Amino acid sequence: MTAPYELIYYGGVPGRGEHVRLALEEAGAPYTDTATLPLDKCREAVTTVLDGQQGNPPYFAPPTFRHGDLIISQTSNILMYLGPKLGLAGSGESDVYRVNALALTALDGLSNEVHDCHHPIVVELYYEDQKEESHRRSKEWVKHRLPKHLGYWEKVLKSTEGPWLLGNAFTYADLVVFQCIDGVLFAFPKAMRQAKESGKYDRVFQLWEAVRVRPNIAAYLSSGRRQKYDWGIYRYYPENDVVAD
Amino acid sequence: MTAPYELIYYGGVPGRGEHVRLALEEAGAPYTDTATLPLDKCREAVTTVLDGQQGNPPYFAPPTFRHGDLIISQTSNILMYLGPKLGLAGSGESDVYRVNALALTALDGLSNEVHDCHHPIVVELYYEDQKEESHRRSKEWVKHRLPKHLGYWEKVLKSTEGPWLLGNAFTYADLVVFQCIDGVLFAFPKAMRQAKESGKYDRVFQLWEAVRVRPNIAAYLSSGRRQKYDWGIYRYYPENDVVAD
Repeated sequence: MTAPYELIYYGGVPGRGEHVRLALEEAGAPYTDTATLPLDKCREAVTTVLDGQQGNPPYFAPPTFRHGDLIISQTSNILMYLGPKLGLAGSGESDVYRVNALALTALDGLSNEVHDCHHPIVVELYYEDQKEESHRRSKEWVKHRLPKHLGYWEKVLKSTEGPWLLGNAFTYADLVVFQCIDGVLFAFPKAMRQAKESGKYDRVFQLWEAVRVRPNIAAYLSSGRRQKYDWGIYRYYPENDVVAD
Repeated sequence: MTAPYELIYYGGVPGRGEHVRLALEEAGAPYTDTATLPLDKCREAVTTVLDGQQGNPPYFAPPTFRHGDLIISQTSNILMYLGPKLGLAGSGESDVYRVNALALTALDGLSNEVHDCHHPIVVELYYEDQKEESHRRSKEWVKHRLPKHLGYWEKVLKSTEGPWLLGNAFTYADLVVFQCIDGVLFAFPKAMRQAKESGKYDRVFQLWEAVRVRPNIAAYLSSGRRQKYDWGIYRYYPENDVVAD
Protein backbone atom coordinates (compact mmCIF):
# COMPACT_ATOMS: atom_id res chain seq x y z
CA MET A 1 0.00 0.00 0.00
CA THR A 2 1.33 3.41 -0.94
CA ALA A 3 1.62 6.04 1.77
CA PRO A 4 -0.98 8.81 1.48
CA TYR A 5 -0.09 12.35 0.47
CA GLU A 6 -0.77 14.68 3.39
CA LEU A 7 -0.85 18.45 3.03
CA ILE A 8 -0.46 20.21 6.36
CA TYR A 9 -1.62 23.80 5.97
CA TYR A 10 -3.99 26.36 7.40
CA GLY A 11 -7.51 26.70 6.06
CA GLY A 12 -9.39 29.89 5.26
CA VAL A 13 -7.42 31.10 2.23
CA PRO A 14 -5.73 29.36 -0.71
CA GLY A 15 -2.29 30.52 0.46
CA ARG A 16 0.98 28.84 -0.44
CA GLY A 17 -0.60 25.44 0.13
CA GLU A 18 -2.69 26.06 -2.98
CA HIS A 19 0.27 25.34 -5.24
CA VAL A 20 0.52 21.87 -3.75
CA ARG A 21 -3.24 21.32 -4.00
CA LEU A 22 -3.33 22.29 -7.66
CA ALA A 23 -0.60 19.79 -8.54
CA LEU A 24 -2.40 16.98 -6.69
CA GLU A 25 -5.77 17.93 -8.16
CA GLU A 26 -4.40 18.14 -11.70
CA ALA A 27 -2.90 14.66 -11.33
CA GLY A 28 -6.05 13.29 -9.73
CA ALA A 29 -3.95 12.08 -6.80
CA PRO A 30 -5.77 11.41 -3.53
CA TYR A 31 -4.55 13.48 -0.59
CA THR A 32 -5.55 14.65 2.84
CA ASP A 33 -5.55 18.33 3.72
CA THR A 34 -5.60 19.70 7.25
CA ALA A 35 -7.35 22.81 5.88
CA THR A 36 -10.55 20.75 5.84
CA LEU A 37 -10.39 20.11 9.60
CA PRO A 38 -12.17 22.22 12.21
CA LEU A 39 -10.09 25.31 13.02
CA ASP A 40 -8.60 24.09 16.32
CA LYS A 41 -7.73 20.67 14.95
CA CYS A 42 -6.14 22.23 11.89
CA ARG A 43 -4.07 24.62 13.96
CA GLU A 44 -2.94 21.76 16.19
CA ALA A 45 -1.92 19.64 13.19
CA VAL A 46 0.07 22.50 11.66
CA THR A 47 1.90 23.53 14.83
CA THR A 48 2.64 19.96 15.92
CA VAL A 49 4.63 19.45 12.73
CA LEU A 50 6.24 22.92 12.75
CA ASP A 51 7.39 22.55 16.34
CA GLY A 52 9.48 19.55 15.41
CA GLN A 53 7.69 17.13 17.65
CA GLN A 54 7.48 13.42 16.75
CA GLY A 55 11.27 13.24 16.33
CA ASN A 56 11.38 15.65 13.40
CA PRO A 57 13.34 18.90 13.24
CA PRO A 58 11.38 22.14 13.47
CA TYR A 59 10.09 23.85 10.31
CA PHE A 60 9.80 27.59 9.85
CA ALA A 61 6.37 27.92 8.28
CA PRO A 62 3.62 25.97 6.57
CA PRO A 63 2.96 24.39 4.12
CA THR A 64 4.55 21.16 5.20
CA PHE A 65 3.86 17.91 3.43
CA ARG A 66 4.05 14.36 4.68
CA HIS A 67 4.56 11.27 2.56
CA GLY A 68 5.33 8.19 4.61
CA ASP A 69 8.36 8.94 6.79
CA LEU A 70 9.27 12.04 4.82
CA ILE A 71 8.20 15.51 5.94
CA ILE A 72 9.00 18.32 3.51
CA SER A 73 8.67 22.05 4.05
CA GLN A 74 8.82 25.00 1.64
CA THR A 75 6.37 25.18 -1.26
CA SER A 76 8.85 24.85 -4.12
CA ASN A 77 10.56 21.97 -2.33
CA ILE A 78 7.30 20.06 -1.94
CA LEU A 79 6.53 20.62 -5.61
CA MET A 80 9.98 19.46 -6.63
CA TYR A 81 9.38 16.24 -4.72
CA LEU A 82 5.89 15.70 -6.09
CA GLY A 83 6.50 16.87 -9.66
CA PRO A 84 8.12 13.73 -11.09
CA LYS A 85 5.77 11.45 -9.09
CA LEU A 86 2.72 13.21 -10.57
CA GLY A 87 4.13 13.41 -14.09
CA LEU A 88 4.29 17.20 -13.84
CA ALA A 89 8.03 17.87 -14.12
CA GLY A 90 8.71 17.23 -17.79
CA SER A 91 11.20 14.54 -18.68
CA GLY A 92 14.79 14.25 -17.53
CA GLU A 93 17.11 16.09 -15.19
CA SER A 94 17.26 19.31 -17.19
CA ASP A 95 13.47 19.74 -16.99
CA VAL A 96 13.39 19.09 -13.24
CA TYR A 97 15.75 22.02 -12.60
CA ARG A 98 14.08 24.21 -15.20
CA VAL A 99 10.63 23.64 -13.73
CA ASN A 100 11.90 24.34 -10.22
CA ALA A 101 13.55 27.58 -11.40
CA LEU A 102 10.31 28.71 -13.05
CA ALA A 103 8.31 27.89 -9.92
CA LEU A 104 10.78 29.77 -7.71
CA THR A 105 10.71 32.77 -10.02
CA ALA A 106 6.91 32.93 -9.95
CA LEU A 107 6.71 32.40 -6.18
CA ASP A 108 9.26 35.16 -5.55
CA GLY A 109 7.93 37.64 -8.06
CA LEU A 110 4.17 37.15 -8.16
CA SER A 111 3.52 35.79 -4.69
CA ASN A 112 6.06 37.12 -2.14
CA GLU A 113 6.33 40.50 -3.84
CA VAL A 114 2.54 40.83 -4.00
CA HIS A 115 2.15 39.84 -0.36
CA ASP A 116 4.58 42.60 0.54
CA CYS A 117 2.34 45.13 -1.22
CA HIS A 118 0.02 44.96 1.79
CA HIS A 119 2.80 44.31 4.33
CA PRO A 120 5.88 46.27 3.21
CA ILE A 121 7.07 46.96 6.77
CA VAL A 122 6.65 43.63 8.62
CA VAL A 123 3.96 40.94 8.80
CA GLU A 124 3.81 41.31 12.57
CA LEU A 125 2.04 44.67 12.19
CA TYR A 126 -1.52 45.05 10.95
CA TYR A 127 -2.19 46.34 7.45
CA GLU A 128 -3.83 49.38 9.04
CA ASP A 129 -0.52 50.23 10.68
CA GLN A 130 1.36 50.28 7.37
CA LYS A 131 -1.38 51.53 5.08
CA GLU A 132 0.52 54.51 3.78
CA GLU A 133 3.63 52.50 2.87
CA SER A 134 1.40 49.79 1.44
CA HIS A 135 -0.30 52.26 -0.86
CA ARG A 136 2.99 53.64 -2.11
CA ARG A 137 4.42 50.17 -2.64
CA SER A 138 1.29 49.05 -4.52
CA LYS A 139 1.52 52.02 -6.88
CA GLU A 140 5.21 51.51 -7.56
CA TRP A 141 4.85 47.72 -7.80
CA VAL A 142 2.11 47.99 -10.40
CA LYS A 143 4.20 50.49 -12.34
CA HIS A 144 7.62 48.82 -12.21
CA ARG A 145 7.37 45.21 -11.15
CA LEU A 146 4.14 43.96 -12.68
CA PRO A 147 5.25 44.73 -16.28
CA LYS A 148 8.64 43.25 -15.51
CA HIS A 149 7.14 39.97 -14.33
CA LEU A 150 4.43 39.71 -16.98
CA GLY A 151 7.05 40.57 -19.59
CA TYR A 152 9.29 37.77 -18.37
CA TRP A 153 6.56 35.13 -18.56
CA GLU A 154 5.54 36.36 -22.00
CA LYS A 155 9.15 36.05 -23.11
CA VAL A 156 9.44 32.49 -21.79
CA LEU A 157 6.23 31.45 -23.55
CA LYS A 158 7.43 33.09 -26.75
CA SER A 159 10.80 31.33 -26.55
CA THR A 160 9.23 27.87 -26.17
CA GLU A 161 6.37 28.71 -28.53
CA GLY A 162 3.90 27.56 -25.85
CA PRO A 163 1.28 26.69 -25.04
CA TRP A 164 3.11 25.81 -21.82
CA LEU A 165 6.23 27.17 -20.19
CA LEU A 166 8.26 24.20 -21.37
CA GLY A 167 6.57 24.15 -24.77
CA ASN A 168 4.46 21.03 -25.26
CA ALA A 169 5.01 19.52 -21.82
CA PHE A 170 2.53 20.65 -19.19
CA THR A 171 4.28 20.95 -15.79
CA TYR A 172 3.61 22.21 -12.29
CA ALA A 173 5.34 25.46 -13.26
CA ASP A 174 2.27 26.21 -15.39
CA LEU A 175 0.09 25.59 -12.35
CA VAL A 176 2.21 27.86 -10.17
CA VAL A 177 2.09 30.68 -12.72
CA PHE A 178 -1.66 30.16 -13.15
CA GLN A 179 -2.23 30.47 -9.41
CA CYS A 180 0.00 33.54 -9.15
CA ILE A 181 -1.72 35.30 -12.05
CA ASP A 182 -5.06 34.35 -10.59
CA GLY A 183 -4.09 35.92 -7.27
CA VAL A 184 -2.81 39.11 -8.89
CA LEU A 185 -6.08 39.35 -10.85
CA PHE A 186 -7.84 39.34 -7.49
CA ALA A 187 -5.53 41.82 -5.78
CA PHE A 188 -4.99 44.28 -8.62
CA PRO A 189 -7.93 43.94 -11.03
CA LYS A 190 -7.54 47.39 -12.58
CA ALA A 191 -3.84 47.02 -13.30
CA MET A 192 -4.40 43.53 -14.69
CA ARG A 193 -7.19 44.78 -16.96
CA GLN A 194 -4.83 47.46 -18.23
CA ALA A 195 -2.12 44.82 -18.76
CA LYS A 196 -4.52 42.56 -20.63
CA GLU A 197 -5.82 45.33 -22.84
CA SER A 198 -2.28 46.38 -23.74
CA GLY A 199 -1.97 43.17 -25.77
CA LYS A 200 1.62 42.80 -24.58
CA TYR A 201 1.04 39.71 -22.49
CA ASP A 202 -1.41 37.68 -24.54
CA ARG A 203 0.49 34.44 -24.04
CA VAL A 204 0.42 34.87 -20.26
CA PHE A 205 -3.32 35.43 -20.13
CA GLN A 206 -3.83 32.53 -22.53
CA LEU A 207 -1.85 30.30 -20.18
CA TRP A 208 -4.02 31.36 -17.24
CA GLU A 209 -7.17 30.58 -19.26
CA ALA A 210 -5.82 27.28 -20.59
CA VAL A 211 -4.98 26.04 -17.09
CA ARG A 212 -8.33 27.19 -15.71
CA VAL A 213 -10.27 25.03 -18.16
CA ARG A 214 -8.24 21.83 -17.80
CA PRO A 215 -10.84 19.28 -16.68
CA ASN A 216 -9.39 18.42 -13.26
CA ILE A 217 -8.54 22.03 -12.50
CA ALA A 218 -11.96 23.31 -13.60
CA ALA A 219 -13.63 20.67 -11.43
CA TYR A 220 -11.47 21.63 -8.48
CA LEU A 221 -11.99 25.37 -8.88
CA SER A 222 -15.75 24.95 -8.84
CA SER A 223 -15.64 22.60 -5.84
CA GLY A 224 -15.87 23.50 -2.15
CA ARG A 225 -12.19 22.59 -1.78
CA ARG A 226 -11.15 25.80 -3.53
CA GLN A 227 -11.03 28.49 -0.89
CA LYS A 228 -11.64 32.18 -1.43
CA TYR A 229 -8.99 34.88 -1.35
CA ASP A 230 -9.37 36.91 1.80
CA TRP A 231 -6.70 37.80 4.39
CA GLY A 232 -3.91 35.80 2.75
CA ILE A 233 -1.20 36.56 0.22
CA TYR A 234 -3.61 38.14 -2.27
CA ARG A 235 -5.86 40.81 -0.75
CA TYR A 236 -8.14 43.32 -2.32
CA TYR A 237 -7.95 46.83 -0.91
CA PRO A 238 -9.83 49.37 -3.05
CA GLU A 239 -7.29 52.06 -2.16
CA ASN A 240 -4.50 49.92 -3.59
CA ASP A 241 -6.37 48.94 -6.75
CA VAL A 242 -4.40 51.31 -8.95
CA VAL A 243 -3.15 51.46 -12.52
CA ALA A 244 0.28 52.48 -13.76
CA ASP A 245 0.33 56.17 -14.63
CA MET B 1 36.97 15.11 -19.21
CA THR B 2 34.41 16.55 -16.82
CA ALA B 3 32.64 19.75 -17.82
CA PRO B 4 33.75 22.80 -15.81
CA TYR B 5 31.53 24.49 -13.27
CA GLU B 6 30.71 28.00 -14.47
CA LEU B 7 29.15 30.62 -12.23
CA ILE B 8 27.60 33.45 -14.21
CA TYR B 9 27.07 36.40 -11.90
CA TYR B 10 27.84 40.08 -11.50
CA GLY B 11 31.01 41.19 -9.73
CA GLY B 12 31.35 43.98 -7.17
CA VAL B 13 29.47 42.45 -4.24
CA PRO B 14 29.11 38.91 -2.85
CA GLY B 15 25.40 38.85 -3.71
CA ARG B 16 23.37 35.71 -4.22
CA GLY B 17 26.20 34.18 -6.23
CA GLU B 18 28.19 33.97 -3.00
CA HIS B 19 26.17 30.97 -1.83
CA VAL B 20 27.30 29.05 -4.90
CA ARG B 21 30.92 30.20 -4.47
CA LEU B 22 31.04 29.09 -0.85
CA ALA B 23 29.84 25.58 -1.75
CA LEU B 24 32.44 25.26 -4.51
CA GLU B 25 35.21 26.70 -2.32
CA GLU B 26 34.36 24.43 0.61
CA ALA B 27 34.54 21.40 -1.68
CA GLY B 28 37.73 22.61 -3.35
CA ALA B 29 36.01 22.27 -6.73
CA PRO B 30 37.52 24.28 -9.61
CA TYR B 31 35.11 26.75 -11.21
CA THR B 32 35.04 29.81 -13.39
CA ASP B 33 33.28 32.97 -12.26
CA THR B 34 32.26 35.81 -14.57
CA ALA B 35 32.60 38.17 -11.58
CA THR B 36 36.36 38.05 -12.18
CA LEU B 37 36.00 39.42 -15.74
CA PRO B 38 36.30 43.11 -16.64
CA LEU B 39 32.98 44.89 -16.03
CA ASP B 40 31.79 45.02 -19.66
CA LYS B 41 32.70 41.39 -20.36
CA CYS B 42 31.01 40.29 -17.16
CA ARG B 43 27.83 42.19 -17.98
CA GLU B 44 27.82 40.71 -21.47
CA ALA B 45 28.26 37.17 -20.14
CA VAL B 46 25.41 37.62 -17.63
CA THR B 47 22.92 39.17 -20.05
CA THR B 48 23.70 36.75 -22.89
CA VAL B 49 22.59 33.87 -20.68
CA LEU B 50 19.62 35.72 -19.14
CA ASP B 51 18.30 36.77 -22.53
CA GLY B 52 17.92 33.15 -23.54
CA GLN B 53 20.26 33.32 -26.48
CA GLN B 54 22.20 30.22 -27.57
CA GLY B 55 18.99 28.19 -27.80
CA ASN B 56 18.18 28.42 -24.08
CA PRO B 57 15.03 29.85 -22.54
CA PRO B 58 15.30 33.24 -20.82
CA TYR B 59 16.10 33.43 -17.09
CA PHE B 60 14.75 36.09 -14.76
CA ALA B 61 17.85 37.07 -12.80
CA PRO B 62 21.40 35.99 -12.00
CA PRO B 63 23.00 33.87 -10.64
CA THR B 64 22.88 31.32 -13.40
CA PHE B 65 25.16 28.33 -13.46
CA ARG B 66 26.41 26.26 -16.35
CA HIS B 67 27.60 22.68 -16.19
CA GLY B 68 28.03 21.15 -19.63
CA ASP B 69 24.73 21.45 -21.49
CA LEU B 70 22.80 22.32 -18.37
CA ILE B 71 22.05 25.91 -17.39
CA ILE B 72 20.42 26.38 -13.99
CA SER B 73 18.98 29.56 -12.51
CA GLN B 74 17.85 30.44 -8.97
CA THR B 75 20.31 30.17 -6.09
CA SER B 76 18.64 27.37 -4.16
CA ASN B 77 18.17 25.39 -7.37
CA ILE B 78 21.87 25.63 -8.24
CA LEU B 79 22.77 24.51 -4.74
CA MET B 80 20.36 21.61 -4.92
CA TYR B 81 22.07 20.49 -8.13
CA LEU B 82 25.59 20.93 -6.77
CA GLY B 83 24.99 19.70 -3.22
CA PRO B 84 25.15 15.94 -3.80
CA LYS B 85 27.98 16.33 -6.35
CA LEU B 86 30.10 18.22 -3.81
CA GLY B 87 29.21 15.95 -0.89
CA LEU B 88 27.35 18.79 0.81
CA ALA B 89 23.78 17.48 0.89
CA GLY B 90 23.95 14.82 3.59
CA SER B 91 23.03 11.29 2.65
CA GLY B 92 19.83 10.06 1.09
CA GLU B 93 16.65 11.59 -0.28
CA SER B 94 15.35 12.87 3.02
CA ASP B 95 18.48 14.98 3.57
CA VAL B 96 18.36 16.45 0.06
CA TYR B 97 14.89 17.88 0.70
CA ARG B 98 15.71 18.91 4.25
CA VAL B 99 18.85 20.77 3.15
CA ASN B 100 16.95 22.52 0.37
CA ALA B 101 14.21 23.57 2.81
CA LEU B 102 16.80 25.00 5.21
CA ALA B 103 18.53 26.87 2.40
CA LEU B 104 15.21 28.29 1.15
CA THR B 105 14.24 29.36 4.66
CA ALA B 106 17.53 31.19 5.17
CA LEU B 107 17.44 32.82 1.73
CA ASP B 108 13.88 34.04 2.28
CA GLY B 109 14.29 35.19 5.83
CA LEU B 110 17.85 36.44 6.17
CA SER B 111 18.58 37.50 2.60
CA ASN B 112 15.40 38.64 0.79
CA GLU B 113 13.88 40.16 3.93
CA VAL B 114 17.12 41.99 4.73
CA HIS B 115 17.41 43.29 1.19
CA ASP B 116 13.93 44.71 1.50
CA CYS B 117 15.03 46.68 4.59
CA HIS B 118 16.77 49.11 2.25
CA HIS B 119 14.26 48.71 -0.59
CA PRO B 120 10.80 48.22 0.94
CA ILE B 121 8.98 50.01 -1.88
CA VAL B 122 10.59 48.68 -5.09
CA VAL B 123 14.15 47.98 -6.26
CA GLU B 124 13.63 50.25 -9.26
CA LEU B 125 13.74 53.33 -7.00
CA TYR B 126 16.91 54.54 -5.27
CA TYR B 127 17.39 53.98 -1.57
CA GLU B 128 17.29 57.77 -1.15
CA ASP B 129 13.76 57.76 -2.55
CA GLN B 130 12.50 55.28 0.05
CA LYS B 131 14.68 56.24 2.99
CA GLU B 132 11.84 56.93 5.36
CA GLU B 133 10.09 53.62 4.70
CA SER B 134 13.45 51.87 4.83
CA HIS B 135 14.15 53.27 8.27
CA ARG B 136 10.80 52.19 9.60
CA ARG B 137 11.13 48.74 8.12
CA SER B 138 14.65 48.33 9.54
CA LYS B 139 13.43 49.22 13.03
CA GLU B 140 10.49 46.85 12.86
CA TRP B 141 12.51 44.10 11.17
CA VAL B 142 15.17 44.18 13.88
CA LYS B 143 12.45 44.12 16.52
CA HIS B 144 10.14 41.43 15.13
CA ARG B 145 11.84 39.42 12.43
CA LEU B 146 15.46 39.15 13.49
CA PRO B 147 14.60 37.38 16.80
CA LYS B 148 12.14 35.17 14.96
CA HIS B 149 14.79 34.04 12.47
CA LEU B 150 17.65 33.68 14.95
CA GLY B 151 15.28 31.82 17.25
CA TYR B 152 14.36 29.41 14.50
CA TRP B 153 17.99 28.56 13.67
CA GLU B 154 18.79 28.17 17.36
CA LYS B 155 15.88 25.77 17.66
CA VAL B 156 17.03 23.71 14.69
CA LEU B 157 20.57 23.45 16.08
CA LYS B 158 19.20 22.51 19.48
CA SER B 159 16.96 19.81 17.99
CA THR B 160 19.83 18.15 16.10
CA GLU B 161 22.32 18.84 18.90
CA GLY B 162 24.64 20.45 16.32
CA PRO B 163 27.28 21.39 15.55
CA TRP B 164 25.61 21.59 12.14
CA LEU B 165 22.02 22.03 11.04
CA LEU B 166 21.71 18.34 10.26
CA GLY B 167 23.67 17.30 13.34
CA ASN B 168 26.98 15.70 12.44
CA ALA B 169 26.73 16.10 8.68
CA PHE B 170 28.07 19.38 7.33
CA THR B 171 25.95 20.56 4.38
CA TYR B 172 25.54 23.56 2.14
CA ALA B 173 22.67 24.71 4.38
CA ASP B 174 25.34 25.53 6.99
CA LEU B 175 27.15 27.60 4.37
CA VAL B 176 23.97 29.44 3.40
CA VAL B 177 23.15 30.27 7.02
CA PHE B 178 26.77 31.33 7.61
CA GLN B 179 26.65 33.72 4.66
CA CYS B 180 23.27 35.14 5.72
CA ILE B 181 24.39 35.70 9.31
CA ASP B 182 27.60 37.23 8.01
CA GLY B 183 25.60 39.65 5.87
CA VAL B 184 23.26 40.62 8.69
CA LEU B 185 26.32 41.23 10.92
CA PHE B 186 27.45 43.72 8.30
CA ALA B 187 24.07 45.40 7.80
CA PHE B 188 22.86 45.52 11.41
CA PRO B 189 25.95 45.34 13.65
CA LYS B 190 24.27 46.92 16.68
CA ALA B 191 21.25 44.64 16.63
CA MET B 192 23.47 41.61 16.10
CA ARG B 193 25.71 42.61 19.02
CA GLN B 194 22.58 42.88 21.16
CA ALA B 195 21.42 39.47 19.93
CA LYS B 196 24.79 37.91 20.66
CA GLU B 197 25.01 39.39 24.13
CA SER B 198 21.51 38.15 24.97
CA GLY B 199 22.93 34.62 25.01
CA LYS B 200 19.76 33.35 23.35
CA TYR B 201 21.37 32.40 20.08
CA ASP B 202 24.72 30.95 21.09
CA ARG B 203 24.40 27.96 18.77
CA VAL B 204 23.78 30.24 15.78
CA PHE B 205 26.82 32.40 16.45
CA GLN B 206 28.88 29.26 17.07
CA LEU B 207 27.79 27.93 13.68
CA TRP B 208 28.87 31.18 12.01
CA GLU B 209 32.27 30.98 13.72
CA ALA B 210 32.72 27.27 13.01
CA VAL B 211 32.06 27.77 9.28
CA ARG B 212 34.33 30.80 9.14
CA VAL B 213 37.34 28.84 10.37
CA ARG B 214 36.92 25.77 8.18
CA PRO B 215 40.21 25.61 6.26
CA ASN B 216 38.86 26.08 2.72
CA ILE B 217 36.39 28.76 3.81
CA ALA B 218 39.00 30.66 5.83
CA ALA B 219 41.38 30.56 2.87
CA TYR B 220 38.64 31.81 0.57
CA LEU B 221 37.49 34.60 2.89
CA SER B 222 41.01 35.99 3.13
CA SER B 223 41.57 35.73 -0.64
CA GLY B 224 40.91 38.37 -3.27
CA ARG B 225 38.00 36.26 -4.55
CA ARG B 226 35.87 37.25 -1.55
CA GLN B 227 34.22 40.54 -2.45
CA LYS B 228 33.19 43.24 -0.01
CA TYR B 229 29.63 44.08 0.94
CA ASP B 230 28.66 47.36 -0.66
CA TRP B 231 25.58 48.15 -2.73
CA GLY B 232 24.19 44.60 -2.73
CA ILE B 233 21.78 42.67 -0.54
CA TYR B 234 23.54 43.62 2.69
CA ARG B 235 24.15 47.35 3.06
CA TYR B 236 25.28 49.43 5.96
CA TYR B 237 23.36 52.64 6.54
CA PRO B 238 24.19 54.27 9.89
CA GLU B 239 20.63 55.58 10.18
CA ASN B 240 19.27 52.02 9.95
CA ASP B 241 21.78 50.52 12.37
CA VAL B 242 19.27 50.27 15.20
CA VAL B 243 18.56 47.99 18.14
CA ALA B 244 15.23 46.57 19.28
CA ASP B 245 13.69 48.81 21.91
